[in-house]
Amino acid sequence: MSSEAADEASETYSEFIDRVERLTNLGHAGGVLGWDQEVMMPEGGTPARSKQRSAISTVTHELLTSDEMAAALDDLEAGELSDERASVVREVRRQHDRAASVPQDLVEEISEVSSEAMPVWQEAKEEDDFSKFAPTLERLVELKREYAEHIDPDRDPYEVLFEEYEPYLGVDTAERVLERLREELVPLVEAVRESDADLATDTFEGEFDTDTQEDLARDVLDTLGYDWDHGRLDTAPHPFSSGNQFDARVTTRFSPDEPLGALMATVHEFGHATYTLGLPREEYGTPLGKSRDMTVHESQSRLWENHVGRSRAFWERFLPKVKERFPEKLSDASVDDVYEAANEVYEDNLIRVEADELTYHMHIIVRFEIERDLIRGDLDVEDVPEVWNDKYEEYLGIRPDSDAEGCLQDIHWSHGDFGYFPTYSLGSVLATQLYASAEEDIENIDEKVAEGDFDPLHDWLTENVHRHGCRYTTDELIRQATGEDYTADYFLDYVKSKYGELYELDDYQ
Amino acid sequence: MSSEAADEASETYSEFIDRVERLTNLGHAGGVLGWDQEVMMPEGGTPARSKQRSAISTVTHELLTSDEMAAALDDLEAGELSDERASVVREVRRQHDRAASVPQDLVEEISEVSSEAMPVWQEAKEEDDFSKFAPTLERLVELKREYAEHIDPDRDPYEVLFEEYEPYLGVDTAERVLERLREELVPLVEAVRESDADLATDTFEGEFDTDTQEDLARDVLDTLGYDWDHGRLDTAPHPFSSGNQFDARVTTRFSPDEPLGALMATVHEFGHATYTLGLPREEYGTPLGKSRDMTVHESQSRLWENHVGRSRAFWERFLPKVKERFPEKLSDASVDDVYEAANEVYEDNLIRVEADELTYHMHIIVRFEIERDLIRGDLDVEDVPEVWNDKYEEYLGIRPDSDAEGCLQDIHWSHGDFGYFPTYSLGSVLATQLYASAEEDIENIDEKVAEGDFDPLHDWLTENVHRHGCRYTTDELIRQATGEDYTADYFLDYVKSKYGELYELDDYQ
Repeated sequence: MSSEAADEASETYSEFIDRVERLTNLGHAGGVLGWDQEVMMPEGGTPARSKQRSAISTVTHELLTSDEMAAALDDLEAGELSDERASVVREVRRQHDRAASVPQDLVEEISEVSSEAMPVWQEAKEEDDFSKFAPTLERLVELKREYAEHIDPDRDPYEVLFEEYEPYLGVDTAERVLERLREELVPLVEAVRESDADLATDTFEGEFDTDTQEDLARDVLDTLGYDWDHGRLDTAPHPFSSGNQFDARVTTRFSPDEPLGALMATVHEFGHATYTLGLPREEYGTPLGKSRDMTVHESQSRLWENHVGRSRAFWERFLPKVKERFPEKLSDASVDDVYEAANEVYEDNLIRVEADELTYHMHIIVRFEIERDLIRGDLDVEDVPEVWNDKYEEYLGIRPDSDAEGCLQDIHWSHGDFGYFPTYSLGSVLATQLYASAEEDIENIDEKVAEGDFDPLHDWLTENVHRHGCRYTTDELIRQATGEDYTADYFLDYVKSKYGELYELDDYQ
Repeated sequence: MSSEAADEASETYSEFIDRVERLTNLGHAGGVLGWDQEVMMPEGGTPARSKQRSAISTVTHELLTSDEMAAALDDLEAGELSDERASVVREVRRQHDRAASVPQDLVEEISEVSSEAMPVWQEAKEEDDFSKFAPTLERLVELKREYAEHIDPDRDPYEVLFEEYEPYLGVDTAERVLERLREELVPLVEAVRESDADLATDTFEGEFDTDTQEDLARDVLDTLGYDWDHGRLDTAPHPFSSGNQFDARVTTRFSPDEPLGALMATVHEFGHATYTLGLPREEYGTPLGKSRDMTVHESQSRLWENHVGRSRAFWERFLPKVKERFPEKLSDASVDDVYEAANEVYEDNLIRVEADELTYHMHIIVRFEIERDLIRGDLDVEDVPEVWNDKYEEYLGIRPDSDAEGCLQDIHWSHGDFGYFPTYSLGSVLATQLYASAEEDIENIDEKVAEGDFDPLHDWLTENVHRHGCRYTTDELIRQATGEDYTADYFLDYVKSKYGELYELDDYQ
């Protein structure tokens, strides 16, 4: 390239990056508005807030799909690019193409129908009457199929929707992994159900003052290494985390009779926030400073929740802190007791968000199979409740009595979020694969956790996952971090050995 | 107009309104980011937040100055418009013209220099060394003069800058009113200083638990009628209020030795929020649903702070609540004691934000005269400290020992905010004029306040001020609300009679 051409290319790239940064910043601004709405906003603020968020979306959409952006992408792709720049262009191209292929009218209609769907779903759930929600769900399925068709009329619409949340692993991988989980976990859960093992599941019974719980949660975040200069903890009805590498916040919820649930939710959201905080600060504003998609994000939250928070080593460190705060409740509890309580496989839980580490995936698989079939046109909306209940019976051995505790339990479909659910399981599976790799690289990781020394794990995750942002695609990132392709082997080994031991299952130890 | 032409005009207007609403919503989104930054954001979030706010500003500026907006304004002005629509067009035209006349480069330079100015000012203040801040101040003065020149090269640059904060009263009015205040308040303050009256100024001496103070502040907001479904109270280093008619929030600050200051700050910010909440909800997004500028906004905060919060009637209602919370401190205090404490004229206070209702204006006048002369080129930056100190001696009878307590005390100049200060006094003056009018219309207003019945006052303010948004210009609004032109007569009568009585001044009762 002549030096003049190089200057020109460099100017094109720099103007392109300005646009990308503006887009990213508007996106993060929208994120702050979302956080505030969930955590701080008085209820009456909703009408104005919806309009503010929608204005940001509209402006973002216009910038992303503008002729200038399209031309810049074309120009850059036609020239030579460093690997890093090529990654940035790849990510923006994908967003641009998806956004540009869907008519703005359809986007707005989906947004409107979803807004209206929320209270309809809520009422249907309260009245335990799926038929009230069915027409709305039908409309959303239609609209999202139409949406997928605009993006790619030649591919399975569910595949297209799935890629909104996980663009690089492929829906076939998701399907294969979820099928394997079902095949191997259904008998494992059955074996657990039949086990006579007597776990200390009543360790956390009773009422736990929520202020003290919050104090504990702050302590656990301290212990794990949360950076309060770049984060905060608040409560929200549905715990979530949000933000960027300069300001990644965590929410949780406290209830007097579920201290363990609150702690695990806090650790889970900490995992998300830690990923965000590990993104390179100097790349803020471009895909190199942005987290990879849902699978990787969920792998980080599940890694901290399950592999750290539910481990014996963690409780060696943390149990004394709990005892200090609740001496009258836990004075006699051993690390083993807490470990057992934290890893109990519930007998008859129908609710995903209250599920244990093992049965959790059954909840995901049921919804995945149903939403996939709905979008593919292989299942009618009216048949959802029965199919749902049948699958629960088949996979979990329990049958919901009501739609409220069945197919109406989760809000996601009312948002029009089809294709999102599988990433919950894919993330858990990846968490195990990553943690296995970290265990190989970090000597005596359990001892370090028991000592409260989380620096090696943070360093490992930052080095192998966080600092790359969207530099690599999901599959490349996994290969780089673990030396292997994405696989469910580690996860299945892990749950078999863990629950085999806990529940004294001869076939699984 | 033919019906076809009418349809076309109506479509032009409706597209124009879409643009205006988008602009407003982006502005409010920026407001949420600002609130969060002051109240919630962890400190480390600053770099990302600055970029997010700047992205919103850039996008807003582009939309406001776009060719489409210019064409829509031209079209609408060329046609016939209802009074209401003409008001909307007038307001947007003003914003558009100002924004379009200043080169984006200059706007960005001012924004950059102000960002850098803040820490420089802070350091200069800490080290009590004006010379450290002088070069930055000089640069800001230059840039803002340049800014004003772009908007209108033929007018006094201070006048042009002043109109950014108060576009309709005119800088000549401001100058006339402030001069009159100086002439009449300087001797009044002197008389107060010479008075032998013994006020119960020690009523609030001691340490007051800040949690209990907050509880009190919430109670006073309840009593005054703050709508918690559309607002919230938090703390911030510099109390402020922000939001819109669906969500108008208040901040205050608590310090153990200044319970009265915290209460008055809360009531002041409540006044701002109440104005915002009184704006018509159905007009959200356009100038008809937007508050008039700084003078009117400040009139609302000062009305509640001074005419309600510092009145005997208010304390009849409120003192029992204070006593309940601080029985060991205030058990013997009478309403007169509290009234005297709340209206003490301080002997030697040099700090504006800690000033009483009377000497407050001296602080404003000093800064107004200095900033005006700086912008007009009649004063050199290097002479500011001495001129400042001389004026304090002349107007208040006290001379600052240091620049930290003198011309470096306030942050505003480091923001490049020249022309803002006078609206503080103009607002207080307007508060008195409005309250006098309300007193005429509401029978026995004092009794109602003493009973905690604030509905009539809310109704009066909503009817005469709030509901109009930017429908009228400031001067029209004042005439409509009070039947008179803007005048300082009421304010001067009010302070003379109030402080004449309090300090037993023969010449003033």
